[in-house]
Amino acid sequence: MLVVMKHNASSQEIRDVVDMIQEMGYEARPIPGRQRTSIGLIGNDGQVEPNLFQSFPGVLEVIPVSHSYKQVSREWKEENTIVTLPNGTRIGGTEVALMAGPCAVESEEQILGIAETLAGMGATILRGGAFKPRTSPYSFQGMGVKGLELLAKARDETGMAIVTEAMDVGTADQVAEYADILQVGARNMQNYPLLRKVGRIGKPILLKRGLSATIEELLLAAEYVVAEGNPNVILCERGVRSFDTQTRNLLDLTAIPVVKSLCHLPIIADPSHGTGIRAKVTPMARAAVAAGADGLMVEVHPDPNRALSDGAQSLYPEQFRELLDQIRVIAQAINRELTPPLGE
Amino acid sequence: MLVVMKHNASSQEIRDVVDMIQEMGYEARPIPGRQRTSIGLIGNDGQVEPNLFQSFPGVLEVIPVSHSYKQVSREWKEENTIVTLPNGTRIGGTEVALMAGPCAVESEEQILGIAETLAGMGATILRGGAFKPRTSPYSFQGMGVKGLELLAKARDETGMAIVTEAMDVGTADQVAEYADILQVGARNMQNYPLLRKVGRIGKPILLKRGLSATIEELLLAAEYVVAEGNPNVILCERGVRSFDTQTRNLLDLTAIPVVKSLCHLPIIADPSHGTGIRAKVTPMARAAVAAGADGLMVEVHPDPNRALSDGAQSLYPEQFRELLDQIRVIAQAINRELTPPLGE
Amino acid sequence: MLVVMKHNASSQEIRDVVDMIQEMGYEARPIPGRQRTSIGLIGNDGQVEPNLFQSFPGVLEVIPVSHSYKQVSREWKEENTIVTLPNGTRIGGTEVALMAGPCAVESEEQILGIAETLAGMGATILRGGAFKPRTSPYSFQGMGVKGLELLAKARDETGMAIVTEAMDVGTADQVAEYADILQVGARNMQNYPLLRKVGRIGKPILLKRGLSATIEELLLAAEYVVAEGNPNVILCERGVRSFDTQTRNLLDLTAIPVVKSLCHLPIIADPSHGTGIRAKVTPMARAAVAAGADGLMVEVHPDPNRALSDGAQSLYPEQFRELLDQIRVIAQAINRELTPPLGE
Amino acid sequence: MLVVMKHNASSQEIRDVVDMIQEMGYEARPIPGRQRTSIGLIGNDGQVEPNLFQSFPGVLEVIPVSHSYKQVSREWKEENTIVTLPNGTRIGGTEVALMAGPCAVESEEQILGIAETLAGMGATILRGGAFKPRTSPYSFQGMGVKGLELLAKARDETGMAIVTEAMDVGTADQVAEYADILQVGARNMQNYPLLRKVGRIGKPILLKRGLSATIEELLLAAEYVVAEGNPNVILCERGVRSFDTQTRNLLDLTAIPVVKSLCHLPIIADPSHGTGIRAKVTPMARAAVAAGADGLMVEVHPDPNRALSDGAQSLYPEQFRELLDQIRVIAQAINRELTPPLGE
Repeated sequence: MLVVMKHNASSQEIRDVVDMIQEMGYEARPIPGRQRTSIGLIGNDGQVEPNLFQSFPGVLEVIPVSHSYKQVSREWKEENTIVTLPNGTRIGGTEVALMAGPCAVESEEQILGIAETLAGMGATILRGGAFKPRTSPYSFQGMGVKGLELLAKARDETGMAIVTEAMDVGTADQVAEYADILQVGARNMQNYPLLRKVGRIGKPILLKRGLSATIEELLLAAEYVVAEGNPNVILCERGVRSFDTQTRNLLDLTAIPVVKSLCHLPIIADPSHGTGIRAKVTPMARAAVAAGADGLMVEVHPDPNRALSDGAQSLYPEQFRELLDQIRVIAQAINRELTPPLGE
Repeated sequence: MLVVMKHNASSQEIRDVVDMIQEMGYEARPIPGRQRTSIGLIGNDGQVEPNLFQSFPGVLEVIPVSHSYKQVSREWKEENTIVTLPNGTRIGGTEVALMAGPCAVESEEQILGIAETLAGMGATILRGGAFKPRTSPYSFQGMGVKGLELLAKARDETGMAIVTEAMDVGTADQVAEYADILQVGARNMQNYPLLRKVGRIGKPILLKRGLSATIEELLLAAEYVVAEGNPNVILCERGVRSFDTQTRNLLDLTAIPVVKSLCHLPIIADPSHGTGIRAKVTPMARAAVAAGADGLMVEVHPDPNRALSDGAQSLYPEQFRELLDQIRVIAQAINRELTPPLGE
Repeated sequence: MLVVMKHNASSQEIRDVVDMIQEMGYEARPIPGRQRTSIGLIGNDGQVEPNLFQSFPGVLEVIPVSHSYKQVSREWKEENTIVTLPNGTRIGGTEVALMAGPCAVESEEQILGIAETLAGMGATILRGGAFKPRTSPYSFQGMGVKGLELLAKARDETGMAIVTEAMDVGTADQVAEYADILQVGARNMQNYPLLRKVGRIGKPILLKRGLSATIEELLLAAEYVVAEGNPNVILCERGVRSFDTQTRNLLDLTAIPVVKSLCHLPIIADPSHGTGIRAKVTPMARAAVAAGADGLMVEVHPDPNRALSDGAQSLYPEQFRELLDQIRVIAQAINRELTPPLGE
Repeated sequence: MLVVMKHNASSQEIRDVVDMIQEMGYEARPIPGRQRTSIGLIGNDGQVEPNLFQSFPGVLEVIPVSHSYKQVSREWKEENTIVTLPNGTRIGGTEVALMAGPCAVESEEQILGIAETLAGMGATILRGGAFKPRTSPYSFQGMGVKGLELLAKARDETGMAIVTEAMDVGTADQVAEYADILQVGARNMQNYPLLRKVGRIGKPILLKRGLSATIEELLLAAEYVVAEGNPNVILCERGVRSFDTQTRNLLDLTAIPVVKSLCHLPIIADPSHGTGIRAKVTPMARAAVAAGADGLMVEVHPDPNRALSDGAQSLYPEQFRELLDQIRVIAQAINRELTPPLGE
């Protein structure tokens, strides 16, 4: 941490900062500059609040230098983490993983039908919400346990792995009985009791970026999971809040190369929530692969206009097949390939 | 809801939209305009997804008209909701309520000392975190139940009411045993299981606006609590995320008159988290009262430089006293007054 | 425009809105709903201020329906506008155009050398600033007219077309003497006198999206140029302001398919300004092509570490060549191709 | 500037950074830390691009320390700048200055009438646009020179000073013939030729913050004016772009104390553009004074519903009088007072 003093800070003011740093048990190193003196705090273990010194007399500003995430950083572990699922799908290596399915499980016919269709096209991971967080208390909230059972049945019939959301500590164990990947949704990215809980459960986690989370905050949320001993975290960019109302969110694809340079965990993109509009999902899914995403999570519904949630952003199955044809070529352009279909 | 068709939409495309609206059980009312036809959906009960029709051929855009919040709206209930605490403090009427205290309970000496000081100055509600949500897993996480006990002791000794945060469903009942107001933090504003839980507990709730929550989303989160039968919700503006790094957050004081026009619930401001810098807390606290806030939540610490969290944004007790002197005059300018001190 | 009345609006309040609409010369059409009445304003020619009725008693909200841009919209002209440059490069058709070069013209050796290199790799448009808008008055401000002359010399020697910025009305004619495409920078996107001026000059315009411009505002800025009789406007996404400081801006690639659905003008992407970091330029350039961009504008410098501006985001020439190899494949995946090199 | 190296940076990588700093003519000072080495760049004169070193091998991040603004900073000049107008109004001292008037000059009757009303209430500065920047090319663009003449006439009759916008270099001299304060609008905050031009004209400047300008960028824009020898710059907070559509902009009142701590120039607030809704103007005007603003700029129109622009955010004259009664008390609470009316 660097405490930058005003150009006319008195030597007493400088000494007060130095004294406080030493009282806290760290080393203080004054760095005289042409315009002003700065004081480095050496040995920061992540416990020092960045702006503690902001209000000291004579202080111009305080600049954090150390990051507070550790185990998820590339400095800590240089090679990519690869998350391997029971059905053999690998996320974080050279393959681009394909998660697809409806926003919510709505019926046995719906979920088994779409799972068979998607597996036939080459997707190896089935998404589908059983517990749904909804902005309005009056919207459809998901089928609950019955939905989990249907997902498991779809897995039995197709071999696809299952990713579904755990909304709170109370039901996380139940979800974990059925899911291959536990999803922590964007609204829960900083729900720390939940992060600790899924960290202890130990199954792979899909951690979605919060609507206005910085990348550092996303990595710190992942650190909560990893700090509980669970290294299998998959990050997911799904759009951040912005000022334009043309799209539901602003899909921040630059987050993909930024995360990859700072962190060894895989990162995928969710262009369905990232755009909120069916016609934008395909171009942004292509762009995500071109930007280096380790996978895609795409909403596909057999009859989007009659979906109980998120129908407007769900692809028709045929559109998903066309998307796969396009991203297969794009992946090759950067020496990657799509996850091979199950059974190949 | 209004579905706006492209100027060259075919009559078949218009009919498809009308048919789907009717299939969903609503009434469709085409409105021909000079440039293009719009189709009104009449009878929306909040179940229709706003952008369902976005992907229909010939549709230019879809415009939501109804709001999805109901019971919290001024249309539903015109007069202000006034939340009354056991010690007589009233929030939402003409009085400006004063919540003050440290970010976190750190020791018996700290919390009892500051409570006595603050009660003596005129504050009637004591804040202090026992369970602390922290961005980093390596930061101080609060004293837990021991902290709750100390808060209760401070209440016994001073008569102040207690506001403290409930972080998850699992510990909410425990927190409710001690607290007079249960706080739901900004990161949990859309933690729906928690909102339902504190709704059922029934004690007054302090609901903080999420970092990038729209006002409509804030009102919908309040609706979750009220829908469980708990009408005593106090909203809190505490800053939203923005692009400038000069302050921790951007305190959106306009939210105060906006909420007051749409909603009958009280709304207070938290200038400590809203700015993150001690020297900005006082001017923004004044501004919040001038904008019409029903109360303030201010971090005050006996020794901010040695606080275990948020020291940089905590006022010294003496600064809090000066603030009270200023806002007492400001409240008068708009025909309000500060909550009278306990015992007066 | 739709004026939505409160559910308890009086019939007098409804009548007042209707009367005002008629006084303004438009038709008013009340639309009773289950919850509340709305009043449509028919015949809006873009002159009505959207929020004029906001403050009328009994009005809940006002919803704009018509867009205020006209000639740039796909409703006005369905087929793509293709901008053709003197050297034959076509922007807006199936080809992906390549604009490359240094941030600023720094010397004859620099600009002629890099132009020859880039033309050899296949780029057909040379970028390079002669007049530079800089955030600080103390930064390098460009070579001015001398820089324009060097750009023209580079065109003579390589056949590349020239794109360079016009910063104000006073120097726009001078810039237009040399440039094949006049660039209007992001900071000037709403500089209306400049937009009108370059509209009258008539040469192709590269209009960069402002840092916090909505897509509607970008289209309205283009409308200023087109309204002066100049249909040759190329839009450019170059990143918007956001809350994360990891990258200089947040490149909003979804803007590409959004613009393409609303507007017939070509749109390219500038991943150099959009990210601000060399290592992120290549993945985001790939992503832009995958998202459907009609071209790329990329900063390439022969010695980025010694560039007078924007060195940190400039590619080495060799990196640009590798990028071309990748996007050639990506373009094929969506049935497009890179602009053929000059002389082929 | 601080270049932070990765924890595993090689000594060669560290040496490369040091060598480049020295080649640029600055001093390099390595600072070994517990986790990693940082390298301070000493002697930065504002010419070094902050992220030049970002792409060097072994570099983790680059942290700017020096600010690039100089003459506007409090470090450069500690006491407040007070701008004095010909009619004696002082801006930047203890008085709160009152600028009021319609968005645009519309007719002689309108501007003379409202000027007389406002002067009678105590305002000493008349606002009114003659040249209007409008988002749409089809909106009312102002009366031009005729509008300037009417403003001058209003000054002659009432003694009020005139503030009006200069939109471009070409017409700035003409506007300066009539205006006492030249306004540079939000969209032109980074129009550098215009900033230089009004700097050379020498009359007091009202510089509005751009829609997504950081405070540092606002101060740098002011630096452009001051660097031309014109110290009389008044800054104006008028709302920034945010994600909520409830209000036109998000009025960032915290900018007031932040600017006051960094800079010696006066800063006022414009709650009319800052909110865009009449009913929110009064509370936010009060809040601005409570936050420490040196003045207010408020739109007041004799008949807002028939205004040619911005009617929805214009106060009725009677509302302005009530506002003055409230802020008179608020100013006293912080030991300030409203500018005395003309003739007192």
